[in-house]
Amino acid sequence: MTHKIAILGASGYTGAELVRLIATHPSMEIVALTGDRKAGMAMAEVFPFLRHLDLPTLCKIEEVDFSGVDLAFCALPHATSQAVISKLPRDLKVVDLSADFRLRDPAEYQKWYGKPHSAVELQKEAVYGLTEFYRDEIRAARLVAGTGCNAATGQYALRPLIAAGVIDLDQITIDLKAGVSGAGRSLKENLLHAELSEGTHAYAAGGKHRHLGEFDQEFSKVAGRPVLVQFTPHLLPMNRGILATVYVHGDAEEIHATLAAAYERETFLEVLPFGALPSTRDVRGSNFVHIGVTADRIPGRAIVVAALDNLAKGSSGQAIQNANLMLGAEETAGLMLAPVFP
Amino acid sequence: MTHKIAILGASGYTGAELVRLIATHPSMEIVALTGDRKAGMAMAEVFPFLRHLDLPTLCKIEEVDFSGVDLAFCALPHATSQAVISKLPRDLKVVDLSADFRLRDPAEYQKWYGKPHSAVELQKEAVYGLTEFYRDEIRAARLVAGTGCNAATGQYALRPLIAAGVIDLDQITIDLKAGVSGAGRSLKENLLHAELSEGTHAYAAGGKHRHLGEFDQEFSKVAGRPVLVQFTPHLLPMNRGILATVYVHGDAEEIHATLAAAYERETFLEVLPFGALPSTRDVRGSNFVHIGVTADRIPGRAIVVAALDNLAKGSSGQAIQNANLMLGAEETAGLMLAPVFP
Amino acid sequence: MTHKIAILGASGYTGAELVRLIATHPSMEIVALTGDRKAGMAMAEVFPFLRHLDLPTLCKIEEVDFSGVDLAFCALPHATSQAVISKLPRDLKVVDLSADFRLRDPAEYQKWYGKPHSAVELQKEAVYGLTEFYRDEIRAARLVAGTGCNAATGQYALRPLIAAGVIDLDQITIDLKAGVSGAGRSLKENLLHAELSEGTHAYAAGGKHRHLGEFDQEFSKVAGRPVLVQFTPHLLPMNRGILATVYVHGDAEEIHATLAAAYERETFLEVLPFGALPSTRDVRGSNFVHIGVTADRIPGRAIVVAALDNLAKGSSGQAIQNANLMLGAEETAGLMLAPVFP
Amino acid sequence: MTHKIAILGASGYTGAELVRLIATHPSMEIVALTGDRKAGMAMAEVFPFLRHLDLPTLCKIEEVDFSGVDLAFCALPHATSQAVISKLPRDLKVVDLSADFRLRDPAEYQKWYGKPHSAVELQKEAVYGLTEFYRDEIRAARLVAGTGCNAATGQYALRPLIAAGVIDLDQITIDLKAGVSGAGRSLKENLLHAELSEGTHAYAAGGKHRHLGEFDQEFSKVAGRPVLVQFTPHLLPMNRGILATVYVHGDAEEIHATLAAAYERETFLEVLPFGALPSTRDVRGSNFVHIGVTADRIPGRAIVVAALDNLAKGSSGQAIQNANLMLGAEETAGLMLAPVFP
Repeated sequence: MTHKIAILGASGYTGAELVRLIATHPSMEIVALTGDRKAGMAMAEVFPFLRHLDLPTLCKIEEVDFSGVDLAFCALPHATSQAVISKLPRDLKVVDLSADFRLRDPAEYQKWYGKPHSAVELQKEAVYGLTEFYRDEIRAARLVAGTGCNAATGQYALRPLIAAGVIDLDQITIDLKAGVSGAGRSLKENLLHAELSEGTHAYAAGGKHRHLGEFDQEFSKVAGRPVLVQFTPHLLPMNRGILATVYVHGDAEEIHATLAAAYERETFLEVLPFGALPSTRDVRGSNFVHIGVTADRIPGRAIVVAALDNLAKGSSGQAIQNANLMLGAEETAGLMLAPVFP
Repeated sequence: MTHKIAILGASGYTGAELVRLIATHPSMEIVALTGDRKAGMAMAEVFPFLRHLDLPTLCKIEEVDFSGVDLAFCALPHATSQAVISKLPRDLKVVDLSADFRLRDPAEYQKWYGKPHSAVELQKEAVYGLTEFYRDEIRAARLVAGTGCNAATGQYALRPLIAAGVIDLDQITIDLKAGVSGAGRSLKENLLHAELSEGTHAYAAGGKHRHLGEFDQEFSKVAGRPVLVQFTPHLLPMNRGILATVYVHGDAEEIHATLAAAYERETFLEVLPFGALPSTRDVRGSNFVHIGVTADRIPGRAIVVAALDNLAKGSSGQAIQNANLMLGAEETAGLMLAPVFP
Repeated sequence: MTHKIAILGASGYTGAELVRLIATHPSMEIVALTGDRKAGMAMAEVFPFLRHLDLPTLCKIEEVDFSGVDLAFCALPHATSQAVISKLPRDLKVVDLSADFRLRDPAEYQKWYGKPHSAVELQKEAVYGLTEFYRDEIRAARLVAGTGCNAATGQYALRPLIAAGVIDLDQITIDLKAGVSGAGRSLKENLLHAELSEGTHAYAAGGKHRHLGEFDQEFSKVAGRPVLVQFTPHLLPMNRGILATVYVHGDAEEIHATLAAAYERETFLEVLPFGALPSTRDVRGSNFVHIGVTADRIPGRAIVVAALDNLAKGSSGQAIQNANLMLGAEETAGLMLAPVFP
Repeated sequence: MTHKIAILGASGYTGAELVRLIATHPSMEIVALTGDRKAGMAMAEVFPFLRHLDLPTLCKIEEVDFSGVDLAFCALPHATSQAVISKLPRDLKVVDLSADFRLRDPAEYQKWYGKPHSAVELQKEAVYGLTEFYRDEIRAARLVAGTGCNAATGQYALRPLIAAGVIDLDQITIDLKAGVSGAGRSLKENLLHAELSEGTHAYAAGGKHRHLGEFDQEFSKVAGRPVLVQFTPHLLPMNRGILATVYVHGDAEEIHATLAAAYERETFLEVLPFGALPSTRDVRGSNFVHIGVTADRIPGRAIVVAALDNLAKGSSGQAIQNANLMLGAEETAGLMLAPVFP
């Protein structure tokens, strides 16, 4: 059985990553690719690394005939996404990769994104796309909201610990290191090679990063009471990869055991032996997450480190995993590619 | 049908790349992995990026039971390779990734590698592994010698041109830019990140690089007379990728047409539109080769640029492509993974 | 004695490099910095790495009082530069870092830059800024045109060889590898870290690069007859540095001896021992040029490799060296900083 | 007046950085360079980037005539350093860059370095080399112990805060990001470009890093009671630079004011405006430290970020600053080089 797929916003990195992964997916077939400013161009012009594939030419969204489409991935910028998705056929399954449907509460959306949500009904309906924790809802969903890539990394490290009550909920600090592709293909001075390589800095520090909206929503829901974490992201001179170093108060061995038990049956979530810590290199280009735990020398403190690929498991890989569930395919279909090292 | 595979020398980069690619191969199953110094270790310890796979523990070569093995990849250093392969069962199919069986002439081997070949009979028997040009011989071979990664890149740019007589055979200059993984996992000062990043230099310049032995053998064979090329490799601050900029005397459009015709039916060899030139980024991690041709402003001169991934198409991908032929599998099996960008 | 300096166009990389170098110059003092779009900003905001310096606030060019200025560096884009310099006081010494005054022939300017020159008189008057070859003219000049960074690299490798008649003038190929800062701080997709790192490609290949105008002008002048070279630049994933690999026909030892003799008394031009080749790492951030020569295995062919830092010796360092001459200061003043490695 | 300088252990990165900085120092002259394994070699062979300098040939330590030497920098590995320094003339001023004399307490040395100290008397005598906090002692010292580069970064962020009592001493977490040159020129697999580039990981996490010995000693001394910090270093794909992100409990504005006041007269310590955070790019190759403070969204929490160049201010620049004091030279002599960007 073949699933007909449309990718809206195929000229950015997450769009291209969807195409890359679907290229070897056993049951998905791409029937439409849109890219407003690049409409009319071949995908091979926009992304020469995809030139071996037989793909539809980029078109405008209004040119797509959705009648034969089973599922659309929407890889548009936030705000644009809500406008576009509102107008899609009501029976079309949609996986949105933007930030538009991650937050359930319109007030929270407005707080973090600076303007009112224009599709509040859809916002309510959307299912949060952190696959391993929303599997049943995703299976039944029409609209799934892909998580923030940083938000996914932090949640893989923390959700089972918050649920199990094995850490102090008021003492959680997430120091995150992110590769540059997470910022997309936008033309900003600080994303130039000459500016970015050979150095590092913190950004959106002190509680300004929008993915905090997701942390707040999800961690508070899991805990059953408000949870506020500290979260400081850093930009690193690498293209892919997120490493979250999470400082918690709790018993390190209990924490390790809790994570190991929670993820025991998960294909993509690998908990390393106690004391071993992950590297982003070891998940590059793949849908795997590596998680490690070590004790600190200060009794009662532990460090949890989680690594994933922001474009794959943090975004497009996650989206395909969710689409697999929504389409009734094998959850891991197209996603078992090994990481690329070196 | 399942093909049982052994990988001898699995603790280096080409060994790991074989495992990475075989991980999603439809009919290959790894039954033995050897690594002398790392015997007894799990592959996940040596290469944590492979930890999601269920793999045999590394052992010594003498511990492998070859009776159930259909094909062995030999990813050992040169010189070691000839000693090991001599002792393997005579009916075992072998794809060697070292330099040991690339040259047919023992004198040439001694000239480039500095000592006599110790398995001259095998040297004669081996088939040169440049798949697209030795397909029939490879299908029938017991022992296939993987090409040098630089040698493959230059040959993809030049073989059809030499065969068709459309370039001056005495005016060929190959200026090559190579990523560092081609040097393997060896501990050398100039391969350290602090030494290599943020800079470039030529090495083995002026005709000293060993892959010249392959160029000489193959180009002279194709031309039916001795052909000597100039070849200067450069080391670049990147992990994967080879870009060969080849300066030739000839008509650029005829050259382009010749390459396009020669590779028209080849899955992995993509000739770009006339005037477009390739980037190593666009083949990273994949088995594809991108080739471009442009005219120079000086009449009668042209530039051919070829790009491939040294670990994939330049080495382990090529090896699997050859093994597929030797085992009667689909030639492209396990090799259709799209490049990874960014 | 203090020389009062203005820098026009201080918000780009060459402007910032001028400030960096002048920071420890014994006799230059910066009295004005302009940056049209960033007028009103402190230099520390535009370039935080300069925040320890006490510098004038960026202003518009028309706000500068040139009466107390001894020399202006003009680090504006080409075309803008000719318009601005035309309006500067006639007695102000100017070192221009743009392409506007490099070519003597208005027809050549139009050919390479696509439109007529608007200050033809100044174009005639300007002295070509390749210090070691135009020292006396520069000393006496009012307007000096900084060379292209690629053009400088190629000329250091070739000028003495062309002058001495030791190479075949019709067989010169320059394969050049350049770091990304040469492209400036402009917002282009292909200059993003995610696009540029971990890969390489040729650009402006086949005779399209504008620095060919300089090669043609200068080499033909030195040779006393037209000389056309092949020139193919490549973009590398590094910030600074140019490596020119120059393929010539001639006797390698004679070539080496010719370069060594020509540069024997030059402080900044280092000819390596015969057979040794340079690395861009070894000149990073400095005004030094390293040049090596080796023979090819094909008799009568040689390879000359030159390395310099595009922002320093290729642009801003060269500009200061020229300014020193124009101002009667020590030629090497402010330029003896050692390269930065690693 | 000229100060005669010997550098013991000149073949590593800190030795080379000393030479680089002394190259433009107004009063230091290098009269001896040692390098046991590379004795007899020219410095230009070991470090071609220094080839423009007229330097003594590398020799063995026992070949150095110390009678004419005013000060020796000792850039040897720890353990070796204490053995060598014990045998130097008693009246020779020494700046040691190793870890051997940083800790005052022999038991602490043994705890962190795994064996007893062999020069306990010297250990007592040595002055801790964090210049801005030990200026008077350094001026009078015979033996100064250079600090750890990570230890320096953390202390610049924290010492004034601990001294002023404006942060909770039991809630200090230092998440540190370090470039690879801090690991030296040693041949380790994880320092290879292919292993290190394009990724990041934590190391020595949970309280195992030896620089904790320095933090414990110094912070406890400043506080007048035991202070234990959490400290997790990460290795980043860049050559130079350390960024310490320090999580503290306290009032962010008070913290900023405390740092600004403490460093108001310091040439090399720059406190950024409140809310601005530093980047390692902006101090690359220089002796400057940039420090920023921001509030967290959680009341009562603040983030202090400090950036320096590990080889310069973190090691060799610091050493020269201390030597300047010991020799009665201007403290900033040779150290005012601007950072190198891009």
